[in-house]
Amino acid sequence: MSKELVNILFVGDIVGEPGLSLLETILPSLIKKHDADFVIANGENSHKGKGINRSIIQRLYNLGVHVITGGNHSFAKWKVFDYMKEDGNILRPMNYPTGNPGYGFGIYNIDGIDQKIGVLNLQGRTFMNPIDDPFSTADWVIDRMKEETDVIFVDFHAEATAEKLALAWHLDGKISVFVGTHTHIPTNDARLFPKGTGYISDVGMTGSFDSVLGMDKNTSMKRFKLGTPHRYKLANGNNHLCAITARVDTSTGHCHQIEPIIYPAFQTTKAES
Amino acid sequence: MSKELVNILFVGDIVGEPGLSLLETILPSLIKKHDADFVIANGENSHKGKGINRSIIQRLYNLGVHVITGGNHSFAKWKVFDYMKEDGNILRPMNYPTGNPGYGFGIYNIDGIDQKIGVLNLQGRTFMNPIDDPFSTADWVIDRMKEETDVIFVDFHAEATAEKLALAWHLDGKISVFVGTHTHIPTNDARLFPKGTGYISDVGMTGSFDSVLGMDKNTSMKRFKLGTPHRYKLANGNNHLCAITARVDTSTGHCHQIEPIIYPAFQTTKAES
Amino acid sequence: MSKELVNILFVGDIVGEPGLSLLETILPSLIKKHDADFVIANGENSHKGKGINRSIIQRLYNLGVHVITGGNHSFAKWKVFDYMKEDGNILRPMNYPTGNPGYGFGIYNIDGIDQKIGVLNLQGRTFMNPIDDPFSTADWVIDRMKEETDVIFVDFHAEATAEKLALAWHLDGKISVFVGTHTHIPTNDARLFPKGTGYISDVGMTGSFDSVLGMDKNTSMKRFKLGTPHRYKLANGNNHLCAITARVDTSTGHCHQIEPIIYPAFQTTKAES
Amino acid sequence: MSKELVNILFVGDIVGEPGLSLLETILPSLIKKHDADFVIANGENSHKGKGINRSIIQRLYNLGVHVITGGNHSFAKWKVFDYMKEDGNILRPMNYPTGNPGYGFGIYNIDGIDQKIGVLNLQGRTFMNPIDDPFSTADWVIDRMKEETDVIFVDFHAEATAEKLALAWHLDGKISVFVGTHTHIPTNDARLFPKGTGYISDVGMTGSFDSVLGMDKNTSMKRFKLGTPHRYKLANGNNHLCAITARVDTSTGHCHQIEPIIYPAFQTTKAES
Ligand SMILES: [Fe+2]
Ligand SMILES: [Fe+2]
Ligand SMILES: [Fe+2]
Ligand SMILES: [Fe+2]
Ligand SMILES: [Fe+2]
Ligand SMILES: [Fe+2]
Ligand SMILES: [Fe+2]
Ligand SMILES: [Fe+2]
Repeated sequence: MSKELVNILFVGDIVGEPGLSLLETILPSLIKKHDADFVIANGENSHKGKGINRSIIQRLYNLGVHVITGGNHSFAKWKVFDYMKEDGNILRPMNYPTGNPGYGFGIYNIDGIDQKIGVLNLQGRTFMNPIDDPFSTADWVIDRMKEETDVIFVDFHAEATAEKLALAWHLDGKISVFVGTHTHIPTNDARLFPKGTGYISDVGMTGSFDSVLGMDKNTSMKRFKLGTPHRYKLANGNNHLCAITARVDTSTGHCHQIEPIIYPAFQTTKAES
Repeated sequence: MSKELVNILFVGDIVGEPGLSLLETILPSLIKKHDADFVIANGENSHKGKGINRSIIQRLYNLGVHVITGGNHSFAKWKVFDYMKEDGNILRPMNYPTGNPGYGFGIYNIDGIDQKIGVLNLQGRTFMNPIDDPFSTADWVIDRMKEETDVIFVDFHAEATAEKLALAWHLDGKISVFVGTHTHIPTNDARLFPKGTGYISDVGMTGSFDSVLGMDKNTSMKRFKLGTPHRYKLANGNNHLCAITARVDTSTGHCHQIEPIIYPAFQTTKAES
Repeated sequence: MSKELVNILFVGDIVGEPGLSLLETILPSLIKKHDADFVIANGENSHKGKGINRSIIQRLYNLGVHVITGGNHSFAKWKVFDYMKEDGNILRPMNYPTGNPGYGFGIYNIDGIDQKIGVLNLQGRTFMNPIDDPFSTADWVIDRMKEETDVIFVDFHAEATAEKLALAWHLDGKISVFVGTHTHIPTNDARLFPKGTGYISDVGMTGSFDSVLGMDKNTSMKRFKLGTPHRYKLANGNNHLCAITARVDTSTGHCHQIEPIIYPAFQTTKAES
Repeated sequence: MSKELVNILFVGDIVGEPGLSLLETILPSLIKKHDADFVIANGENSHKGKGINRSIIQRLYNLGVHVITGGNHSFAKWKVFDYMKEDGNILRPMNYPTGNPGYGFGIYNIDGIDQKIGVLNLQGRTFMNPIDDPFSTADWVIDRMKEETDVIFVDFHAEATAEKLALAWHLDGKISVFVGTHTHIPTNDARLFPKGTGYISDVGMTGSFDSVLGMDKNTSMKRFKLGTPHRYKLANGNNHLCAITARVDTSTGHCHQIEPIIYPAFQTTKAES
């Protein structure tokens, strides 16, 4: 059986146990509600805010996550290098130079239907480590993917909005969905690009928002005020999930709908007293 | 006559003529719709994408803008130094070192009601120019403002989400509204902080979204792909306004409601054909 | 007894045990040879390449070092905070924000003669952490020092040659000696500035030169080639001391001579075989 | 006729007319004194401090310069793109992405003797624009050069001392001479690496040293103190040439001697009055 439209659910940077617990509580119902055919999650901060480990990977698979993407923290924990070598469903940015372990993209079967999806993880260079060019890397990978499928999902882990938009414009019409990650703040610009790519600058994080990017806010304030290193701790409280759902036409690879999910919604109005 | 609740309307970075024209079309009705008592706009990109000039300042005043904030492009055009010296309603980030012209904050009467509002413009340092500390600058200015009013609005022009959140947590409860600007992309995290401050990481820009941050997308792609300088041009098309409206209790200075405005809404669903 | 001319010996960033051992071997004879009245050493990398500890501090004092300066690694080891609080002869850059422990400058008696010397440690901001302004900090401290002595020594720990030169020009004639540190490479521009300040852009390091900045060269190459984190180790072998000696007129505070010391000299000619 | 040893003379970043004039005065005698067989000069700042033009290129050729290298300012003047396309003796860093005009390396005949020399220009990425990887680019080019000659000269235009050293260690024994440029300050670490490569971290500039990097020192101080843009002007006065001369064995490609040249020497001792 093939489907004309597939639904992709992507969960933004999961930060530590608060993010994982929230995910365990609500991901199953989200998958059902949005009729998700394929689930991707960024896990670069899932282990105490930095990196990932084997038991977390298993928890994510158990929850229904098919592919785990990464970012600048993918190489934070040395042991992960081994899983990354073995398991093609754990990605790290493709444009890390040759010689690093792990995979930067994969082409996967969507369960239960006769359809493949390509997932590509890339990392930006503006205000970040100078690794290989994400533009030409994307071109090369997408050409390969196109031989097998037009349904292509890109997680671009990057700091600067300009770099995200420039790469998205470069890829418009060639890929189905382009999401940014890394800033841990969801953007309000989910939209369809003119040639068919669904876009959002940043999906945001899944973790504590009584925090600075999921980490203890007092430590962060201290670092900014004093300019000296102070040990990071994970935050907890006011936990939210940030995700997007995208509907893709399998015959064209075009995105028909992209919708941000923030759960629970942030409080924007003072409660009546 | 005094009011218990005042409505503040803030318009994000206006980029060139496309931003200005859109603003002229819709700001009057927005002011009416949201019953805005005070209007602030970030104008650092209003003159061809970089800086501002006297005629644009006048156009903004004519539209009902009371205070114009700035950012890293405030000092781009040398002639502006003169207006900045004379006109306390044009702000540039307060934490530029002593010796630079212009004002970084002001305390203004809200027209028609017996209420003052303090407006403070600051700039971040992460991935930006190393100017003076925005944290201690904020403390000093806010202490002065508190002698005259509890209604305080801060435009923090900064790149990094961590720096925005750290400063906002530092100021929670002391100011009414904290908005971020500079990334030109609206964030989806408008919310009330626990001690009473209304917050959004970035208001986003007012200009062309068929672009990279309001500028020609082809030039931007070329710069990223080639790594060499290519002259920026203003973009036009798919113009949107990004703003927020915030309701503040004048007796406590607390924010009761914060709401993002994107007009027109981005297209997230493919039009039926 | 007072002296008309005093000799100051400054030793550049000591990197780990290779640097310390070399220093123990040759500092006593250097002090004698150059008739040094006052000895200053930068110790920010003395403990395994990062930070310092109490036993190293004691070793340096025993060798005849009077004042130990620091840099961006001064705050690397938490326990050092305690010594820094107690001991005014251990400096860390003065322009770290208020609230950090330790001293950024001191005024010291030169042993055996009736003369005081002011030593100021500052840190740059270009390509570094955005701390407080070194220019205005220098002005403030030097004004205070001038009340007690005209013999003033500045260690400016900074990356960019432009920032070093700009600050040195700003201070020319107000201080006796301006040395740069941090790049770990000695520069060949020791010279007298026109108004009387002795200058060198960087003194260089004291440690292994079979290395990248005193650390294992293979790890460093791996980091650059792969773009991923790999654990630093201290290097050893081909150890050199980098220092300067400066002669200062105590009546004017002007520098009469500045001379770089590299010991042993680098090999620049192939040995005959 | 072939020679067993060839002498290469390299002149560091020429900054504007003060640098060019000084070069015209002394280069001919330097060539004679050091019996230079091949002359290379970095010209990225020769036109008013930023870029180069056709008449300057001609002046350099007339002086006996064989190859002109570049850096981050090579693409500053748009017209230069045309000469760079036509003239293989003007280099710009090789690791700018494909699609940019110009050449990054060349293999040249040394006049009057039967010997070829390869010259490679590369640029760093630490604290600079994220272009292509200089390490793998170097490997690729040097493999090609090795088919024609073992005499290979690399000008690595980079900011960070760590990146310079890491690349030099990576190339030790494969190339004859490795010089750094870009910081405009000569380093005092000219030396022979163990496998045969002659090394210096930075050759320094040729221009006014009554300046900040060859540009007006007052403007530079203003920029650092105020944090705002102020127009750069070329400096003049206290002009020095910074260069190196290296003797290379043509049969092995190894460097037998490397020697820094600073002319005239900096003043390090107060003149007797
Ligand atoms: Fe993350
Ligand atoms: Fe990240
Ligand atoms: Fe900005
Ligand atoms: Fe802006
Ligand atoms: Fe340092
Ligand atoms: Fe150091
Ligand atoms: Fe240069
Ligand atoms: Fe340069």
